[in-house]
Amino acid sequence: MFTRREKNECGLEPVTLKLMEEMLAGNRRALARLMSMVEDDGDEAHALLAAIHPYTGKAHIIGVTGAPGTGKSTLVNELAQVYRRQDITVGIVAVDPTSPFSGGALLGDRIRMRELSGDPGIFIRSMASRGSLGGLACATDDVIKLLDAAGYKRVIVETVGAGQTEVEIARTAHTTIVLEVPGLGDDIQAIKAGLLEIADILVVNKADKAGADTTVTILQAMLDLNSTAASVAAHHTPSPPAAGSEEAGSSSSALAVAWRSPIIKTVAIDGTGAEELVAAIEAHAAFLRETGLFRLKEKRRAEAELRRMLSHALISRFLDQMPPDTLSKIVERIVSREIAPYTAVEELLSGAGSC
Amino acid sequence: MFTRREKNECGLEPVTLKLMEEMLAGNRRALARLMSMVEDDGDEAHALLAAIHPYTGKAHIIGVTGAPGTGKSTLVNELAQVYRRQDITVGIVAVDPTSPFSGGALLGDRIRMRELSGDPGIFIRSMASRGSLGGLACATDDVIKLLDAAGYKRVIVETVGAGQTEVEIARTAHTTIVLEVPGLGDDIQAIKAGLLEIADILVVNKADKAGADTTVTILQAMLDLNSTAASVAAHHTPSPPAAGSEEAGSSSSALAVAWRSPIIKTVAIDGTGAEELVAAIEAHAAFLRETGLFRLKEKRRAEAELRRMLSHALISRFLDQMPPDTLSKIVERIVSREIAPYTAVEELLSGAGSC
Repeated sequence: MFTRREKNECGLEPVTLKLMEEMLAGNRRALARLMSMVEDDGDEAHALLAAIHPYTGKAHIIGVTGAPGTGKSTLVNELAQVYRRQDITVGIVAVDPTSPFSGGALLGDRIRMRELSGDPGIFIRSMASRGSLGGLACATDDVIKLLDAAGYKRVIVETVGAGQTEVEIARTAHTTIVLEVPGLGDDIQAIKAGLLEIADILVVNKADKAGADTTVTILQAMLDLNSTAASVAAHHTPSPPAAGSEEAGSSSSALAVAWRSPIIKTVAIDGTGAEELVAAIEAHAAFLRETGLFRLKEKRRAEAELRRMLSHALISRFLDQMPPDTLSKIVERIVSREIAPYTAVEELLSGAGSC
Repeated sequence: MFTRREKNECGLEPVTLKLMEEMLAGNRRALARLMSMVEDDGDEAHALLAAIHPYTGKAHIIGVTGAPGTGKSTLVNELAQVYRRQDITVGIVAVDPTSPFSGGALLGDRIRMRELSGDPGIFIRSMASRGSLGGLACATDDVIKLLDAAGYKRVIVETVGAGQTEVEIARTAHTTIVLEVPGLGDDIQAIKAGLLEIADILVVNKADKAGADTTVTILQAMLDLNSTAASVAAHHTPSPPAAGSEEAGSSSSALAVAWRSPIIKTVAIDGTGAEELVAAIEAHAAFLRETGLFRLKEKRRAEAELRRMLSHALISRFLDQMPPDTLSKIVERIVSREIAPYTAVEELLSGAGSC
């Protein structure tokens, strides 16, 4: 198998190989076309992702999440400008899982980001789920890999909201930033324990508005509470991983056990706090590398991806060997309450085993 | 296989079988214990779900979603009371994907719902993802099946937020209600096209506040826009399903092609609009049954579940036949950029094929 790939330069179609070479040489048009290819998720996309794999693993991936209206896009814009002043290249992926067909909600972001788009050191990609809600997390992952292979040193992934997809996309990131704004304290549901748990850095944006300090105080109290809960949990967990510190961290996740998530106040609209935020991101990046947690994160991510791909491949291979109407016949029987789904799976598997 | 199951009364442990019989006879404690069992997702849970399958398919499932602070819990409370006045039993499932470990955000809901809990015609279950973000949609599905089997005629599923999980959970519902509140119009991102797409009924809650009529107008305009987009799309789609009407519907989904999503104003806190909303839900339920779309929805849902279970079973079976460190060795090679994930999958599959 490897021989074939080596001979054929990774088994890519000549046109894809050419695009890949152009992309690696810094061609933005080639990068954009390859992004569309991986979004379409065909066989050629898989071969491409295999071919670029050796060029990936260099970018630091930053996830930015928070409820609508917290100012994520503006803040991402400011972060990118700080990085560009340091001559560091930036890829931006704006993900909106709730716009499956129009993508219209991102229009505002695109307008705001236009000022960045003349800079060859920045590449911006907007992603909506375009009808297929299932594949967005995967497609985002693949677009990040392309930006990484294309040499962008920091990739910022901006996700809307607080749902499971956003949390999953944030878990792809090496450093996750969660945005809050003053005044959310009047709704008990607005500040989510689950979001705090994934935050490596907390940002209180619109910090010039009334109530900013109260929001910081509330968040700090919630962080301390989580930290206590994590300490308690650690006593009940057999052999927690060593993390370079005896002290319990700010999160119940073993990955963050020695990192205390800072809370940073920003006013994204005028850039206040953006440099401090970049410094915090870089401190977290250094922390991950020094403690070996970076490699652990990469392993977890690789394993999750491998399992996802494997289960995809297994079900395709399995259904391919069945008569084409197998699935629809069984579905009919399930809906008629003739057979339960779990029993149907057992039946399918035992049938396949006997042939 | 069926013979074994018939002999052993579905292959259940005696204690589970007893609980199931008690649950079917209306015992709430048994229902609660079986819910915990399906949430834990072991082999016995699978056997239980297979055993209750013949008793399911009678409940009408209502999804309620919307951003934090829109008043979902209060509205669900009011809906339940309207149904109870009509002597219709109601199961309520409150899902919070963003509280993986504390579940604390649902405390407020529980307090509000306490007034309902003395009524044997109502059963309330709160669900948080409890550390495992992956399985929440499945666990919710299974808890709904138990409520259905236990004889609750309407099951209301309340989900927080606007992420992919919420959308997926809403897709499980027969009738999906999306909540908005006045004043969200100042943020372009607050009203989501994706949420409009899944809404069978739109609710503007807190309709006594300023701006309610403006919100209704904006939502109506967005619905009309989607409707136009759907008409255009329909012209490019080969053989759209018949839907009892020539008119393009309010959604681009084929399932809703002849349904015009109504917009209903409510003040959940004092019950205003709750009866009208129940009437709209029942009208939608009747529409689904009359057009045959109900069965189509059930088929899609069954197929998705079957595929999910099958891919689960296939990957377990596949990995069981491998040496235990196969996966971790490959992950190590992926992280070292020695091999790409897609190539690793090919290697695994070809290796498995040769033995």
